[in-house]
Amino acid sequence: MDIGDKVRIKTKDIFYEGTLMPNETENIVLKLDNGYNIGIDPKKIISKEVITKSNKESSNKEKLKSEKTIQSINSNKALPKILILHTGGTIASKVDYKTGAVIPRFEPEEIISMFPELRDIANIESELICNILSENLSFNHIEKFAQTILEKIKKEKDLKGIILTHGTDVMTYTSSALGFILQGINIPIIMVGAQRSSDRGSSDAAMNLICAAEFIKKTDFKGVAICMHETSEDKNCIILNCYKTRKMHSSRRDAFRPINTKPIAKVDFKTKQIEFVQKNQYKNINEFNPQINLEKSVGIIKAYPNMNPKLFDAFSGYKGLIVEGTALGHAPIMDVDEYSKDNKKVKESIRILIDSETLVFMTSQSIYGSVQMHVYSCGVELTNMGVSPARMLTETAYIKLAWLLGNYWKSKKDNTRIIELMQTNIDGEIFDRIEEDTYLI
Amino acid sequence: MDIGDKVRIKTKDIFYEGTLMPNETENIVLKLDNGYNIGIDPKKIISKEVITKSNKESSNKEKLKSEKTIQSINSNKALPKILILHTGGTIASKVDYKTGAVIPRFEPEEIISMFPELRDIANIESELICNILSENLSFNHIEKFAQTILEKIKKEKDLKGIILTHGTDVMTYTSSALGFILQGINIPIIMVGAQRSSDRGSSDAAMNLICAAEFIKKTDFKGVAICMHETSEDKNCIILNCYKTRKMHSSRRDAFRPINTKPIAKVDFKTKQIEFVQKNQYKNINEFNPQINLEKSVGIIKAYPNMNPKLFDAFSGYKGLIVEGTALGHAPIMDVDEYSKDNKKVKESIRILIDSETLVFMTSQSIYGSVQMHVYSCGVELTNMGVSPARMLTETAYIKLAWLLGNYWKSKKDNTRIIELMQTNIDGEIFDRIEEDTYLI
Repeated sequence: MDIGDKVRIKTKDIFYEGTLMPNETENIVLKLDNGYNIGIDPKKIISKEVITKSNKESSNKEKLKSEKTIQSINSNKALPKILILHTGGTIASKVDYKTGAVIPRFEPEEIISMFPELRDIANIESELICNILSENLSFNHIEKFAQTILEKIKKEKDLKGIILTHGTDVMTYTSSALGFILQGINIPIIMVGAQRSSDRGSSDAAMNLICAAEFIKKTDFKGVAICMHETSEDKNCIILNCYKTRKMHSSRRDAFRPINTKPIAKVDFKTKQIEFVQKNQYKNINEFNPQINLEKSVGIIKAYPNMNPKLFDAFSGYKGLIVEGTALGHAPIMDVDEYSKDNKKVKESIRILIDSETLVFMTSQSIYGSVQMHVYSCGVELTNMGVSPARMLTETAYIKLAWLLGNYWKSKKDNTRIIELMQTNIDGEIFDRIEEDTYLI
Repeated sequence: MDIGDKVRIKTKDIFYEGTLMPNETENIVLKLDNGYNIGIDPKKIISKEVITKSNKESSNKEKLKSEKTIQSINSNKALPKILILHTGGTIASKVDYKTGAVIPRFEPEEIISMFPELRDIANIESELICNILSENLSFNHIEKFAQTILEKIKKEKDLKGIILTHGTDVMTYTSSALGFILQGINIPIIMVGAQRSSDRGSSDAAMNLICAAEFIKKTDFKGVAICMHETSEDKNCIILNCYKTRKMHSSRRDAFRPINTKPIAKVDFKTKQIEFVQKNQYKNINEFNPQINLEKSVGIIKAYPNMNPKLFDAFSGYKGLIVEGTALGHAPIMDVDEYSKDNKKVKESIRILIDSETLVFMTSQSIYGSVQMHVYSCGVELTNMGVSPARMLTETAYIKLAWLLGNYWKSKKDNTRIIELMQTNIDGEIFDRIEEDTYLI
């Protein structure tokens, strides 16, 4: 069995038919006809057979491993110039049609050639920054994305905008980071992902890319936003705020939802008409003065009943911590009766962190709405201990704290300033109380 | 200033008018006219004055501190008998109208007397188990709730059903636990909470209680469910699955939403008509054989980019762990390039836990949809390491694991059995792939 062969594999319970794919684990990975990959433990395989051999020539991996290149697809002086920067993810999981194998590093022009409609919208340039499924992403990658964007806009003054393709798993962490880093930027940076790989008939990649390009071409929007499907049908895309968006479904095409706000705009895929749902209230009021660093000694803890106090000890020596509390911003710290005496240890662990000047902020695992720590005794108690509310999504609060500590912190003397800045609406990241009634849209 | 006095307090920025309330923190707590409590740091107070003195007699705390009693409000032989067990939370945060103070322990009849409509629905008995805001709840409390319910149904054979009032913050942890413990029970156990304290004009407490009582009276439903507002208006309540419900808003009355499923039923508050939205597919197929124990050495970790590997070390020696991963069930463990080399440490920490036979399961922080760990390399890798998918809400998976380990585990030899049971749909807790298209309702 070679990579690219169409094979049939039997295990105890089931048999699979698909194309054998390259992969770095011990598993055998097949691309099934429905476009999904499946990993099979070799120990569980009872029998395997080749149905069709692959065409060797087309699976020439050396050719596919060529280094990143910029490719201008066409050049029509009447059209604006859009740069597509690829970072990987499902949208870049293009299948080689001859071999059936996912190409781990593809030539930038290949993805563009899959979407010929883009050539009618703009002069497209395309470049690969990296090819990573976003769940494996580190702050170093995000800093590199920002650096690349800054280099590009410095070099290419005539760019109408940039599309950044990205894995969907942690896309909103990156969108928040780029939002803070690039605030005040004078072109649109639109992040696009896909929930189905680009080669599948049902892929959302093409529509998301095309709508992003149309939005860049036809509007004066400036700043960082996300463009993804509005519904599970191929009708509209929505342009989403980089700080107030969350992946709310593990697999649907309309997974990305605005949280406590409305979308910025809608793009009709058929008519290519753009409707602004709300004015871009906050963007571009700030000076463009990019600060790139993200502090790594920050973290997230989710609170839950009977929680383990050692979770807090894991952040000893860290500069900052986000506690994703329950509802209005609570954690099990109140020792109210003989049954809850373990809560004392959680409280003590938080106190030790705060005493050693780790900055601790509270967000809400309810997702919609946000923290209000003065309403119940537990919130009041936490506030008294020195925990501060962060009226943002957990993802946004985590990134904002890393960004503030990375760029505006020199010593513990700056802690008070960082707490103040976390409460300050720097770029529209803080939830608006009126907007909090925008629920489950 | 005495408890119950109407006072005016000035701080640097703002002044507050409200009723001085009892509280065990260092703060001064006022009940504002809008029904919310606010805690004020005494150090920040510039001036304070009493506007109206309280009526001492009515704030007689000794009277209010009376021990728990059962109170039968009326007795009409034509009506069924419903027991209301109070555990605390906002729904029990009744204000004494004379003093304005929240009564920390109230006489059970007081809350019932606030809802006279209940007397026309059933013969109501009412008892206080404890009075705790649910964020401070421990597994010991949940076990006590289950024990009390079991004692009651043993003693009072003529109960048509039980209403359990509960704080909303972690209500769905308790509903899952009671679901597993009481599976196969032959009466309805309906959990009810409130997002606004019962004394407020806008409280949702009355409607939630009344709809729960009507549902118990008029249907043959058996098992554990939740009854809360369907919308932010006082029109309908929904009866929600105890395993597939989540508090999705920190403050709205319609915060409780069905996840990957529809509500079980709707109760029209005006007509009192009940409409079953879906059949109670799973309930009561199991034998009633209550197993109460919840194992405490289990925990939850939320995965995020650049995550701290020491989070896993905090669970060394634990029997079980739920990792709330991204999307289809991923965590940053793949060392794909020079920028992601820190991911190695996370992977190593997970491997150490698994090698020492801590059971590790994966849920999804997307909330809707669920994990599918065979689709991408990261999920395949985690599966190969020994992480098992848990196709449930994080809350449900955590409780299910604690319940299985508490009752069906004697030694590490039972680990394989526990992993199997986590994949087995014991009582309708596992997400149904078709139902996963029920999104954001």
